[in-house]
Amino acid sequence: MIIDNKHTALIVKHKSTLEEAIDAVKTRKNWSPYKDSPSTKIHGPEKPVAGKSAFEAHLNKPFNMDLPGIIEWVGEEISPFTQKPIGITYPLCDPESIVFSAKKNMKEWAKASPELRTSLCLEIADRMYERNFEMAHSVMHVTGQSYTQAFSGSGPNALDRGIEALAYAAIAMDNVTPEAQYQRSFGREQVNLEKTYTLVPRGVALVICCASFPTWNAYPAIFASLSTGNSVVIKPHPIAILPMAIVVDTCRTILTEYGFDPNLVTLSVDTLAEPIAGKYIEHPDVQIIDFTGSPRYGSYLESTITKKLLYTETAGVNSVVVESVDNLTDSMRAIARATCLFSAQMCTSPQVVYVPKEGINTAEGHVSFDEVAETIVSEIDAIAEDPKIASGVMGAIQGKVSLDVVAAATDMAICEGLSILRKSSPYKHPDFPNARTLTPLVIAVNHEHKEMYSEERFGPVLFIVAAESGDSAAEDATELAKTKGTISCYMYSTNEYFIERWVDVYAQVGANLTINLTGAMWINFAAAYSDYHVTGLNPAGNACLADLSFVASRFRIAQRRRPIKES
Amino acid sequence: MIIDNKHTALIVKHKSTLEEAIDAVKTRKNWSPYKDSPSTKIHGPEKPVAGKSAFEAHLNKPFNMDLPGIIEWVGEEISPFTQKPIGITYPLCDPESIVFSAKKNMKEWAKASPELRTSLCLEIADRMYERNFEMAHSVMHVTGQSYTQAFSGSGPNALDRGIEALAYAAIAMDNVTPEAQYQRSFGREQVNLEKTYTLVPRGVALVICCASFPTWNAYPAIFASLSTGNSVVIKPHPIAILPMAIVVDTCRTILTEYGFDPNLVTLSVDTLAEPIAGKYIEHPDVQIIDFTGSPRYGSYLESTITKKLLYTETAGVNSVVVESVDNLTDSMRAIARATCLFSAQMCTSPQVVYVPKEGINTAEGHVSFDEVAETIVSEIDAIAEDPKIASGVMGAIQGKVSLDVVAAATDMAICEGLSILRKSSPYKHPDFPNARTLTPLVIAVNHEHKEMYSEERFGPVLFIVAAESGDSAAEDATELAKTKGTISCYMYSTNEYFIERWVDVYAQVGANLTINLTGAMWINFAAAYSDYHVTGLNPAGNACLADLSFVASRFRIAQRRRPIKES
Repeated sequence: MIIDNKHTALIVKHKSTLEEAIDAVKTRKNWSPYKDSPSTKIHGPEKPVAGKSAFEAHLNKPFNMDLPGIIEWVGEEISPFTQKPIGITYPLCDPESIVFSAKKNMKEWAKASPELRTSLCLEIADRMYERNFEMAHSVMHVTGQSYTQAFSGSGPNALDRGIEALAYAAIAMDNVTPEAQYQRSFGREQVNLEKTYTLVPRGVALVICCASFPTWNAYPAIFASLSTGNSVVIKPHPIAILPMAIVVDTCRTILTEYGFDPNLVTLSVDTLAEPIAGKYIEHPDVQIIDFTGSPRYGSYLESTITKKLLYTETAGVNSVVVESVDNLTDSMRAIARATCLFSAQMCTSPQVVYVPKEGINTAEGHVSFDEVAETIVSEIDAIAEDPKIASGVMGAIQGKVSLDVVAAATDMAICEGLSILRKSSPYKHPDFPNARTLTPLVIAVNHEHKEMYSEERFGPVLFIVAAESGDSAAEDATELAKTKGTISCYMYSTNEYFIERWVDVYAQVGANLTINLTGAMWINFAAAYSDYHVTGLNPAGNACLADLSFVASRFRIAQRRRPIKES
Repeated sequence: MIIDNKHTALIVKHKSTLEEAIDAVKTRKNWSPYKDSPSTKIHGPEKPVAGKSAFEAHLNKPFNMDLPGIIEWVGEEISPFTQKPIGITYPLCDPESIVFSAKKNMKEWAKASPELRTSLCLEIADRMYERNFEMAHSVMHVTGQSYTQAFSGSGPNALDRGIEALAYAAIAMDNVTPEAQYQRSFGREQVNLEKTYTLVPRGVALVICCASFPTWNAYPAIFASLSTGNSVVIKPHPIAILPMAIVVDTCRTILTEYGFDPNLVTLSVDTLAEPIAGKYIEHPDVQIIDFTGSPRYGSYLESTITKKLLYTETAGVNSVVVESVDNLTDSMRAIARATCLFSAQMCTSPQVVYVPKEGINTAEGHVSFDEVAETIVSEIDAIAEDPKIASGVMGAIQGKVSLDVVAAATDMAICEGLSILRKSSPYKHPDFPNARTLTPLVIAVNHEHKEMYSEERFGPVLFIVAAESGDSAAEDATELAKTKGTISCYMYSTNEYFIERWVDVYAQVGANLTINLTGAMWINFAAAYSDYHVTGLNPAGNACLADLSFVASRFRIAQRRRPIKES
């Protein structure tokens, strides 16, 4: 009874947020229940300090979590800012025990009303927002994201993506009436049936998180599966566990508070040496898999998994077509900022900029290819050369792999005699002298170098391609999107005929397109509720954040019917 | 302009039907825009005659259809009522040409508004309803369905399932706003973006139809894919082509009338000797596959197809649990009728009836297992022994395979010393003396014979299992559902505690359950808009007719955004 009252109160508490979220995904307007700035004007002076302390309290000790089947404690996270281990260990569990426990009390969870399950997820989101300063530092020190980016991008912006998925889950579940009366005559007989429709979850859902931006894709997957009645096993990347451990800790606390089994959400860590994901993927009780990570593993999963739901977001080669601009500096600054943001370790970072080799028109007159390229470089320099700005924008390099990518691209450019417009080098981080940093490498190429620029390079490498023309640039960009995959494409053109000619082609190849965006908004910012993320039409992933397709299959419908007794 | 006016008129024409269908799927009430009785009181005296003539006009000649890449003309359909070839040949086409043509003008179709595409599908449904007497004879003479069943089950009932899918497609597409304004401040800058969201179809959709009930699953698949902008290739079973040829003919006529490429819907026939489906399934442009047919091939597809959408409905072992009844005769008659309907060649036909070996309670007192079994048999006899009733209920046996199934079951029963309660034998069809008919075989078994009764047998074979108790019966029935798959389960019990104890278990194993239904309505009748068909939770298929999950992934969303010009 006490539990029942708590449940009702929880539903009431989150009702208006859910309604507003549903309105937001339908109108696709700007909306969020949260603030994505870490400003003390919003949060007061105590929260930032408390959050930092909470993060520091995790360091150099085991992260306590009472998970089933603990085998040993492991942890190999290294802060990209200190380049030292953060010293946290986590329980490594036996997959069989995790899945068994995840399934054990799923029926009770499935019996909870959709409203309750959705509200509990919203409560998780609220608590995570409360812990967001702790989260910001945690994300920062395992991924290399700058403090402000970690706060917003891995906090409210990520929670918003989760709530967006919840809104769709609510819509999809609400579409199934729990009961109906069916009245029809068969011959001279009037038949009256009562029908009951039960939402049945699929089973255990596995969420495989990426290393560089773990929360952003995890929240939607977790909330979509959990709200539709499934239990969730979260498998973080071994180099970025802490943020997901905090999420799982919060989920388990709230589940327990509301009388549910905490094992409905579990954490399954592994090590770089012994990956564990395959054991879950092959487990017959695991029926849903959400994967964010490398195109190679994503494509392997897409090619091998059958009879289970699989949602992927991987990566591709994002391009910018510069056909003509109003203001050269503004446009090139927008591209430069996107290139610098988190040192291009984002799935929306541009890698290829096409500029017609004969130059482009601007409001100030014609400018040459070289001038366009130089403006991009100088705008990157403006960020890179100011350590305070650089640290806020670029953050640090998470993995050695990105250093290797840049080194390999530099070597390749030298070997092939390409023109290196800007060398990549570390910038001096003002707060963390040992931070692993790297500013963008910029290489000028032409279409003969297609093999080089069209290979996905996960790190700060930008190719500026001298295209035959604006149209050939767009043709190449869309072909690249189709064959290599893309998540975000960009276009600058003052020629409406040009834009009109190409927007449909971009849509056909599943390339979400940002046109002529300059100014304060990052061109590669994707806003939950408003921007669909990943189309599923090219190799960059099969799932969209978020649409009905992302949620509608995570539960099934079983029905029963019987005659209504005449009274 | 003329075309545009026609398009607008078409949308207006079907607007209220679509709205009513959407209301029906949400409320799950009884509804249909059509009448499913062939009575001349409804249709007048001319339509039945004209429909029969239209059917007869097809016989013994090529079915003209101007398809791309015709290689040869083939046809091997045999009427189960005359056991003679119907003599129609159809164009067998090169799959490469079919897919090329299907894709060629898909972009224009994708550009048509969702309302227009949906309305065009509704127009197809209306025209098929107009051709329904022709369809009834056509279905009858390739499948063996009785005239009345062919008229209703393969006519309005099937069209309703198609319109149901259309309603969901409309809901899913309507959920994506075509455009939005996004306004938010970044720092001190106010950003105003206009966003455009484009629905992009997946590609070419393949619909593989089953032999015994081709239209019922085909309409939902065709309409779901076509309305969401995909083109459709229909691959009928080689022994049941004519109904689908009529559907394709109608689709192509209407597409042409409204200014679209008729090749958006094509027919791809093959022969028993040289199946062609694999060539489409492997084709990279084929992105959606709907399959209805054997569990063996369905399971093969489910285990091998990756990176494409696959929707299956196959079959399983449907069971009846008889725990206790009000009126013995009424309940056993309901089971007997379901067993007799189309000689159990339906995906909802019961194959196993569990009766406690100690007998059951009825309102008239306790009755023994033998009495229950004898009542089922006598109710089957009542149908089988009256040729007029038998012909209306059982129709004819479509394939030799079902004769073999019955023969093998009989042999098995004799070998194993099982008790054959009722032998299977032909009944004399009043109108077609050469009809291939067969009445149900009824075998009494106990739980030791589980391997025998739990194997799917496609034909009129009914096992009556002497169960230890009602609970052990329900336990076995739900375990059977889980392991062998089921589409419809049935239960008779006057004990509410018993019912309450088991309904959730049935739901968990994805068994749709009909409880205590007797009287004029066939217990295995599944009504579009009201009854969900197939749960996707057991081996009987992965797709549900119809829910949001059936439609939501058939299109994707591509977006573009750009700053709004200040005016």
